[in-house]
Amino acid sequence: MVQRTHACGEITEQHVGEKVVLKGWVQRRRDLGGLIFVDVRDRTGIVQVVFGDDAPEALQLADKIRSEYVIEIEGEIILRDESQVNPNISTGKIEVVASSIQIINEAKTPPFAIEDKVEVGEDLRLKYRYLDLRRPAMYNTFKLRSDITRSIRNFLQNEGFLEVETPILTKSTPEGARDYLVPSRVHEGEFYALPQSPQLFKQLLMVSGFEKYFQIARCFRDEDLRADRQPEFTQVDIETSFMSMDDIIEMNERLIQTVMKEAKGIDVQLPFQRMSYKEAMARFGSDKPDVRFGLELVQLSEIVKDSSFKVFTAAVESGGEVKAINVKANADKYTRKDIDALTEFASIYGAKGLAWIKVTEEGFTGPIAKFFVGQIVEDIMKATDAAPGDLLLFVADQSSVVAAALGALRSKLGKELGLIDESIYAFLWITDWPLLEYDEEAGRYTAAHHPFTRPFDEDIEKMDTNPSEVRAQAYDIVLNGYELGGGSLRIFERDLQEKMFELLGFSKEDAQEQFGFLLEAFEYGVPPHGGLAFGLDRFVMLLAGRNNLRDTIAFPKTATASDLLTSAPSEVSDAQLKELNLTVKKYS
Amino acid sequence: MVQRTHACGEITEQHVGEKVVLKGWVQRRRDLGGLIFVDVRDRTGIVQVVFGDDAPEALQLADKIRSEYVIEIEGEIILRDESQVNPNISTGKIEVVASSIQIINEAKTPPFAIEDKVEVGEDLRLKYRYLDLRRPAMYNTFKLRSDITRSIRNFLQNEGFLEVETPILTKSTPEGARDYLVPSRVHEGEFYALPQSPQLFKQLLMVSGFEKYFQIARCFRDEDLRADRQPEFTQVDIETSFMSMDDIIEMNERLIQTVMKEAKGIDVQLPFQRMSYKEAMARFGSDKPDVRFGLELVQLSEIVKDSSFKVFTAAVESGGEVKAINVKANADKYTRKDIDALTEFASIYGAKGLAWIKVTEEGFTGPIAKFFVGQIVEDIMKATDAAPGDLLLFVADQSSVVAAALGALRSKLGKELGLIDESIYAFLWITDWPLLEYDEEAGRYTAAHHPFTRPFDEDIEKMDTNPSEVRAQAYDIVLNGYELGGGSLRIFERDLQEKMFELLGFSKEDAQEQFGFLLEAFEYGVPPHGGLAFGLDRFVMLLAGRNNLRDTIAFPKTATASDLLTSAPSEVSDAQLKELNLTVKKYS
Repeated sequence: MVQRTHACGEITEQHVGEKVVLKGWVQRRRDLGGLIFVDVRDRTGIVQVVFGDDAPEALQLADKIRSEYVIEIEGEIILRDESQVNPNISTGKIEVVASSIQIINEAKTPPFAIEDKVEVGEDLRLKYRYLDLRRPAMYNTFKLRSDITRSIRNFLQNEGFLEVETPILTKSTPEGARDYLVPSRVHEGEFYALPQSPQLFKQLLMVSGFEKYFQIARCFRDEDLRADRQPEFTQVDIETSFMSMDDIIEMNERLIQTVMKEAKGIDVQLPFQRMSYKEAMARFGSDKPDVRFGLELVQLSEIVKDSSFKVFTAAVESGGEVKAINVKANADKYTRKDIDALTEFASIYGAKGLAWIKVTEEGFTGPIAKFFVGQIVEDIMKATDAAPGDLLLFVADQSSVVAAALGALRSKLGKELGLIDESIYAFLWITDWPLLEYDEEAGRYTAAHHPFTRPFDEDIEKMDTNPSEVRAQAYDIVLNGYELGGGSLRIFERDLQEKMFELLGFSKEDAQEQFGFLLEAFEYGVPPHGGLAFGLDRFVMLLAGRNNLRDTIAFPKTATASDLLTSAPSEVSDAQLKELNLTVKKYS
Repeated sequence: MVQRTHACGEITEQHVGEKVVLKGWVQRRRDLGGLIFVDVRDRTGIVQVVFGDDAPEALQLADKIRSEYVIEIEGEIILRDESQVNPNISTGKIEVVASSIQIINEAKTPPFAIEDKVEVGEDLRLKYRYLDLRRPAMYNTFKLRSDITRSIRNFLQNEGFLEVETPILTKSTPEGARDYLVPSRVHEGEFYALPQSPQLFKQLLMVSGFEKYFQIARCFRDEDLRADRQPEFTQVDIETSFMSMDDIIEMNERLIQTVMKEAKGIDVQLPFQRMSYKEAMARFGSDKPDVRFGLELVQLSEIVKDSSFKVFTAAVESGGEVKAINVKANADKYTRKDIDALTEFASIYGAKGLAWIKVTEEGFTGPIAKFFVGQIVEDIMKATDAAPGDLLLFVADQSSVVAAALGALRSKLGKELGLIDESIYAFLWITDWPLLEYDEEAGRYTAAHHPFTRPFDEDIEKMDTNPSEVRAQAYDIVLNGYELGGGSLRIFERDLQEKMFELLGFSKEDAQEQFGFLLEAFEYGVPPHGGLAFGLDRFVMLLAGRNNLRDTIAFPKTATASDLLTSAPSEVSDAQLKELNLTVKKYS
């Protein structure tokens, strides 16, 4: 086997005259006037190889090759004729004149062309993932993923962090999402669980005095999947001791700045904007707002509460609110039919209706315009910064519905109307989260983040009197409308942790059974600690300009958690089940 | 919270006069003549803090602290009196005079002292792993582990390798060790398996044209555990395309050289020694010989086959052999009782006996001496390089038993007699492995490495005629008697892979059912490829000078695959089992 001398995509006019040995795949073959042109592809790119009469044996063999054959070429680099230069590829000024060719391996015609712009169903792409990954855009995404993790690791190791691996075979804890379980062969009737995150282990490493831990960790959740979820996903998991919330935020900002620079060549300015959870919900109707554009939600409850429009007044009277967004200068674009579609869209988020007004030189128009006269019109105009040509969209409902519906509308319209500058990376911290959320169905509080999140010291006494008002020392990092990561300071006192479990409805026995080892660890000198976890798959997706998480995972699973390539999951043998003391049984 | 200014272990006389804020754990408190001395520990080391009358409040509070309390100290760095200097620690020339102290968290008396030289049962260490990990030697091992992985990653990324994550939820394949299974909730009666290695996925990435892949990958085997096995372990997994065996070996040598330099500061010389499997077995009775010392096995079959000692002649006649090791100049050290113990030891490896001769000025002595006279004595003396004072140990049996027994004896004696220079790192490649091993019990061939290993091209035809003689293009890297890693070139043609499955006893249907996706992938233009995997846990163990794999894993499992800290595995709720359509049932 002769050693390859050059990578296809890296040959330029500087190499003219050099002898080369290339190895790669046939991207394309063209026969033209007694010559054969072959585009040869490797992971670095494509180069054109020419076979002609000067090497008759090679020419003859080149006639046999087809797309995706694996070949080895020997030849010499020459400049192309001026007229043949292809400015679209890095090797467009040169070509390789082949002196010999060897067919290393043949290929059937693939089920889809190996090109970036292939239009083919995702199921087929996943079944033939090894061909899908041959497309340069896919390779480049995984190159970016590798670069991003490299940048993250180097940053953190330079900051003194140790990368520590935590177990995959761990203990099932019912709090949180559904666990994947692993039956034990040795311990009959017992199970391991795959970790939803390394949360407890990283806290235990802080008890161990490691002080600075990170891991790029695989996590697992057996949930019904949405487009942006996978049963296994990867998080950049960070925990530190003796650092304040500001310290942690500042360090992670530098981490992100480094990654953006090293992996994308982009300078981002520090510090990032910070916004409280309450402000984000009020202004954007979202706890992960895309702040690259306006279209903010405007509070109108006070203004309209005495109007003659009963829908608005009833909403305010029943403790809800009325808010609007102003679709500036676009009233003409939206017909009644368009607005009906928006109403339909808003209803997905629970809105019972979507009121609207078009602002004209003559004043308000539209079905509800008549309910507003005089000062109220002026006040609405002023509050929404309205002018002729604007379209106002109103939702009147409970606060959570108003936020959800108008927040979703805002995102949709922002995209539709091209209000978003896609070249911007808008990072944003969301802070001052609630510690607890009341779950009406379960009749108890649940942890807004997780049960180990630390309340603000000054709010601790409210845990007894008004749990809903207790703020958490938690922070999420948002990028362009996506939650990129989140973290918090942690509880590090046994009594506070026990109080938290109590609020979450744990009996003393249950808390002991599930988290006894953590409570016990808390008695042996625990430092103040906190951390953060980034969703790596999503981070890569956003930096790669993709909109599908599966494009960032080499071998992803479908919405039913299947691997179409290897056909996993699959049936196993009776002998395997017998060793595990298990039988499969339909309960229903 | 005041920010920490210095790390405890990094303060030297250069910092004298500086104000400090320290945060850490109380290692020890001593009261002496109205002063209180506290050794404060953080992950970097220990510094001595003094409380005296100048800060009466601090002195009073310092009186309350106990071992492992978490404290914050403010003070000033001063030089110690010459008489108080402690040369054993990096901070031994200075101390901190405290102006204030804050108790951040209290601690119960730990179940064992936080010191490197603690003698305590491993079960207790594992139950309180978070305390065990506080011991500086443990932290340093994980620091080394983090440094090693950093060095490996940087080397490989500089070589153009992409780090790619492969799935943990994958397909069960009966070949190899026992799989851990994960029941699917969505697909009733179906299971995922945790990967024993990313073997198939990394080969598929080569089909994808990624060319250079690596991953520091978690792997799983549900086997009964020995001291050096864990149910989950980590391997440095590497695969490349278009590289020859020599290319791969050369690159991995540079990788190891880089790691040894960066993580340990040790220069190792390249290239490493290479030895065929046959030579290793012949000379050392082991496929992972420790070549830091001699005591090699000597072939004596030809010499003794006509002797009057029936045990020897019978062994040779029945196709076995007779070999010896010469324990130089140590005949006096070994009494009959000692030799009986060695015989007992050899019997563990199947040897039915251990013959011995002591060489004296007068000739051979010992129970079998009488069987050897004249030329045979001379020939044995010459072959074993024997001289008066030597002890010769013989095993006569089938070759595999001779190798196992004498190989094990050699290792044991090498350690006992102090023949090993522990400062040496002796790396060694073992090559020319057999492709197949005949499994007498199953009555079929099994893969010596795995079913994807490539035979030498010139041996392929022997797959039909004499499978036992086919050599694999496989290579193991051995360090000081431990297998550090291994790899091979892979089969990349469908027909050859099918032939291999056939030899391994797969029916066409079974091969299709289990590996159909790989066989199909082989039809779409597969490059020649190969790779290697290092056992990271073992690599860390050897470089850290440890002899227990569990010391290199933050949260390891016991020999019964239990996590004593979190009590995993454990029972799960009926609701969880019901969702998985499973019942636990004892078959036996």
